[in-house]
Amino acid sequence: MEAGRNTRNVAVNDGPFVVPGFKVSAAASGMRYVDRPDLALIVVDSAVGGPAAGVFTKNRFTAAPVLLCREHLNLSRTKAVLVNAGIANACTGEEGINRAREMARLAAEALDTRTEAVLVASTGIIGRQVEIEPVKREMRNLVESARPDRWNEVARAIMTTDLVPKMACAEVCIGGTKVTIGGVAKGSGMIAPDMATLLVFVCTDASIDGAVLNHWARRGADHSFNCITVDGDTSTNDSLIVVSSGAAGNPALAEVDSPDSLAFGEALEAVLLELAKKVVLDGEGATKFIEIQVTGAPDESSGKAVALTIANSPLVKTAFFGEDANWGRIVAAAGRAGVPLVPEQVTLYFNGVCVFRAGTPLTDADTEEKAARVFRGREIEVCLDLGMGAASYTAFTCDLSYDYVKINASYRS
Amino acid sequence: MEAGRNTRNVAVNDGPFVVPGFKVSAAASGMRYVDRPDLALIVVDSAVGGPAAGVFTKNRFTAAPVLLCREHLNLSRTKAVLVNAGIANACTGEEGINRAREMARLAAEALDTRTEAVLVASTGIIGRQVEIEPVKREMRNLVESARPDRWNEVARAIMTTDLVPKMACAEVCIGGTKVTIGGVAKGSGMIAPDMATLLVFVCTDASIDGAVLNHWARRGADHSFNCITVDGDTSTNDSLIVVSSGAAGNPALAEVDSPDSLAFGEALEAVLLELAKKVVLDGEGATKFIEIQVTGAPDESSGKAVALTIANSPLVKTAFFGEDANWGRIVAAAGRAGVPLVPEQVTLYFNGVCVFRAGTPLTDADTEEKAARVFRGREIEVCLDLGMGAASYTAFTCDLSYDYVKINASYRS
Repeated sequence: MEAGRNTRNVAVNDGPFVVPGFKVSAAASGMRYVDRPDLALIVVDSAVGGPAAGVFTKNRFTAAPVLLCREHLNLSRTKAVLVNAGIANACTGEEGINRAREMARLAAEALDTRTEAVLVASTGIIGRQVEIEPVKREMRNLVESARPDRWNEVARAIMTTDLVPKMACAEVCIGGTKVTIGGVAKGSGMIAPDMATLLVFVCTDASIDGAVLNHWARRGADHSFNCITVDGDTSTNDSLIVVSSGAAGNPALAEVDSPDSLAFGEALEAVLLELAKKVVLDGEGATKFIEIQVTGAPDESSGKAVALTIANSPLVKTAFFGEDANWGRIVAAAGRAGVPLVPEQVTLYFNGVCVFRAGTPLTDADTEEKAARVFRGREIEVCLDLGMGAASYTAFTCDLSYDYVKINASYRS
Repeated sequence: MEAGRNTRNVAVNDGPFVVPGFKVSAAASGMRYVDRPDLALIVVDSAVGGPAAGVFTKNRFTAAPVLLCREHLNLSRTKAVLVNAGIANACTGEEGINRAREMARLAAEALDTRTEAVLVASTGIIGRQVEIEPVKREMRNLVESARPDRWNEVARAIMTTDLVPKMACAEVCIGGTKVTIGGVAKGSGMIAPDMATLLVFVCTDASIDGAVLNHWARRGADHSFNCITVDGDTSTNDSLIVVSSGAAGNPALAEVDSPDSLAFGEALEAVLLELAKKVVLDGEGATKFIEIQVTGAPDESSGKAVALTIANSPLVKTAFFGEDANWGRIVAAAGRAGVPLVPEQVTLYFNGVCVFRAGTPLTDADTEEKAARVFRGREIEVCLDLGMGAASYTAFTCDLSYDYVKINASYRS
């Protein structure tokens, strides 16, 4: 299935929003950043918490908070999620795990729940342990200031190199009941499929079975965050967490295949896709948003290989930055993706303008002028038809600019 | 076998050099560049020509000159190689092939030989057909001005975005006879394994069987040009051509496994590795040369996957540019390479300074100062021991700088 294709009927807004059954807060701990919120707390507003699902990094260097979340999701329903920005608590050995657990314990204590009912996420510098004292100092404040309408503060508190906070919300009718799905995301570098440095927290008031929630979380991630790439790099801490409060009171979604469940899955995917696009648009140094559609592929994995090879090519990405409609770099990248494509069958379009067909470029002045106009825009749709089969895959990426280099050459200083 | 390991006994010099049995020349055709040589001719100084071997791009979009070379190498010994810079004659359909053939025919006519005895290579803009008139105009001049000692002009004539010409030469004793191997290379962007935009022409006076020459050309390419990457992009035109004149008069090398053949292979590999390193050092915008050694791998292909994932990571490459000893990005890149490594078994060294061991970084002030000093240097050796097995792989790359973006955002303008 084409990524995102089934979400076009869902209206997604940027917030502000409220998700019934949740209260949230943010605070400035001073752990690494000065004078800005760097802690966020999401609390399910019921004694027992709710079902939750997590999709995490596939990087072999897995950060301590991710290891802890996997453990806690197996043991318990979720009452709260505690997040810090600035220090990733990754590659920190046994002591890192202990500190992640201590973060969860502090929140559990303040919320009068079990440690296993708290999930933890961290983002920032790898190799440094999260500091417990600043978290401890702010815990009471976080719990007491939690309110349903502070999501914008949560979106800001989890930012690192992000330039803008990222929020998205959709509503869907389930069995006659309005259900809300709202979420925040952070991430602008080390962004690639398989959950790059990316934290995403989505909350819903839908009454839903844990297994069904898990199914739609995974499916949604595959069709959103796993289709985006800024630089091909994945991180140690990537986490997508979806929590349900059940406060909507809809007839519980207990089966994956029911029409109501499908409607929920579609809405969740729409929210995730919107957040994913915002992450790309805020890609480090990005000046353009680029959609790479590969059609006519023999199978989805071939389409994905071609789309991601194009999306990650530094030569393609610098051409976008230079507003150079350089079809040559795009077909050359496609040609090295490991798919046995036949140049004479390949067709390339920029926003619907055909620039390459049957192995050769269209170099007439009219085509070149149209293509140049497309490249001067801020959003560019590249469609490469391989002419081999019926499968397709869409990747989302941004250009590679001076600022990408600047940001990443000086991140730790 | 570790790339390049068996070449350390060979003394390689930068030229100037002469290879007995060859005459070369260069000329300015004005096809695209103004007032600089853009055509080069290499002529075997005997009526019948000599055996030749070619290693070409694996990109599915294969340029016309590469298609023609494959055909000619099957049909004939090689009398001459004709090269143009500025226009790549790639993605140019049937007419492109016709023009590549016409280039060969013009050279063959001027040299009084068969068209099949001439190999052709092009580099430059993709999608534009090579122009025949300028080649025709200069052909007589190219043939008449060919001399044994004009290799430095050849090295300059084949440059595109290269900043410096690249030459390397070695001598080896075969059966009591001195044999010379001398070559030139061009390439500074679209450089990645599988022969990225790269032209390499190596000539030897060794008397050698075509099959043996082919064996060592392939082996040498695997251990040199297939280990380097500037940006992960490969091109449509990459060609490595080795031609022998046989003028040295050594006992002919007729078997791959003889000691003399091994000595020849080692010397050829040393020349290719030296040229490959020069290509990396001249990588677009490069300020540093980086050697990524992966040791302790379960097998060579795993080592290669890890080494190339690190070498191609924009986050790693910008950290090098920023002189930031960011071990975190290196281990994170290793962790996404698809190899089931265990963080607790991984050890990382920068020029021999251990910065990461047993899943955690060494963050004492002494280590950090030593690592910082390494990163201020121009050549950096990264050694990542996976602690899994006995295989190893070495990749060579450069950093990612503002100038890389600048060069590639404005290449066509």
